Amino acid sequence: MKTLYTLFSFLSLIYASSGQENFNPHTLPRPLIVDLYKKVPLSEDVVLHCTSWRFAVEANNLSPWKTIPKECKDYVDDYMNKKGYKSDLERVSKEAILYASTVELKGDGKDIWVFDVDETLLSNLPYYAQHGYGLEIFDNVAFDEWVDKGTAEAIESSLKLYDELVKLGFKVFLLTGRSERRRNITVENLTKIGFHDWEKLILRGAEDQGKPATQLKSEKRGQMVEEGYRIHGNSGDQWSDLLGSPVSVRSFKLPNPMYYIA
Amino acid sequence: MKTLYTLFSFLSLIYASSGQENFNPHTLPRPLIVDLYKKVPLSEDVVLHCTSWRFAVEANNLSPWKTIPKECKDYVDDYMNKKGYKSDLERVSKEAILYASTVELKGDGKDIWVFDVDETLLSNLPYYAQHGYGLEIFDNVAFDEWVDKGTAEAIESSLKLYDELVKLGFKVFLLTGRSERRRNITVENLTKIGFHDWEKLILRGAEDQGKPATQLKSEKRGQMVEEGYRIHGNSGDQWSDLLGSPVSVRSFKLPNPMYYIA
Repeated sequence: MKTLYTLFSFLSLIYASSGQENFNPHTLPRPLIVDLYKKVPLSEDVVLHCTSWRFAVEANNLSPWKTIPKECKDYVDDYMNKKGYKSDLERVSKEAILYASTVELKGDGKDIWVFDVDETLLSNLPYYAQHGYGLEIFDNVAFDEWVDKGTAEAIESSLKLYDELVKLGFKVFLLTGRSERRRNITVENLTKIGFHDWEKLILRGAEDQGKPATQLKSEKRGQMVEEGYRIHGNSGDQWSDLLGSPVSVRSFKLPNPMYYIA
Repeated sequence: MKTLYTLFSFLSLIYASSGQENFNPHTLPRPLIVDLYKKVPLSEDVVLHCTSWRFAVEANNLSPWKTIPKECKDYVDDYMNKKGYKSDLERVSKEAILYASTVELKGDGKDIWVFDVDETLLSNLPYYAQHGYGLEIFDNVAFDEWVDKGTAEAIESSLKLYDELVKLGFKVFLLTGRSERRRNITVENLTKIGFHDWEKLILRGAEDQGKPATQLKSEKRGQMVEEGYRIHGNSGDQWSDLLGSPVSVRSFKLPNPMYYIA
């Protein structure tokens, strides 16, 4: 099918550029060409190669990486926009709900679940779609402009987990590398898309500037434990949300093939 | 193509069972039917579902699990025997070699790399192929019989990493949950397929009976650190090979969708 499709696309392009009488390619509806380009399926080799790369990312086998491999841009585009990402997110959410429902809560308000924010509760996919799905080096000025719009949508499977946790009686802590200066817009964005009733929203304060995320988040979890909270679950799209010390009883790594935060 | 193939397979089966004159299905060469059965491709839904399951496994998002999902048996079979597993293994090995070549060794014989054995250096795929690729609950008696044959083959990409490490000057430690009683057959199997010159082979001793792998392997790594060794790398197919305390500077999770060891 792939071969047939490629052949068909190729022949269409030759036909479109053959300049024969009675045929004016400029009268073709423009989107047709774009559609043909977009629909040429990825080769089996690219899918194999980029799937292995993505597994290495998700199992934390790569060194810190700055951009996605050039040859995997269309693969990541497909993964994020077709069924793969959604399916993977739903699986993680389902596993987290299964686990959460087995936790015995003490009822003293100290049983908590920690969530990261970006790519965990909020999706910045529209921003990354405009920046090559991670092919461009991260531009914090442009990203902050996007954040300040406050228009990120909810990751639906995480909202479902979030609501289940609140119903079960967990207290929810939000722990993000976003700056304290973005507290208001973050609260506004989260609430307008359905996240409510968190216990605490912890952002990167003035004293935290320059700290790697693993250190920052470990310190903040350490403070929670010192205050007597029991961290039963932790959801994040970066290993730096989850690793370090102390760690949660169970950690849930959400997929994210677009960027890496140390 | 998939649809065409499924249709073709289906029509062939109808034809084979139509009982018309001049046609006796019993004269068909038997392997044809088996081939047709084997080649019906997995549905897109099964691939999507089982890929999400496999990601959850590799990112350590699942609770301890005992068997693979029934509906993913053919998927795991394909993954292990076609290109996926090999490609994923090679990617991890390549990343480990890249990292190892950047490590500055002190030259005092204390720079080490730790390897697990089963599904890290040795492949037990022929055993698991006979036991549903993880669909059957683990049978330690049958597995020990397989181990005692000493016929496991090398995971080639791991042998390549292993040889590179020895060349670079690392000392190699093998740390396995196999019992001390299987030292001889393990040494025999490893050496006959090309693994040589390890510094130490550590197996589960009498005093270690019943310890979960994470605890066992953490304790053994702790002893290495106490003896002044610097653990730069750790390769294992189970998270219990890699997590706990102390951990290696870098850990490399090899793929394994067939079983889980706590």
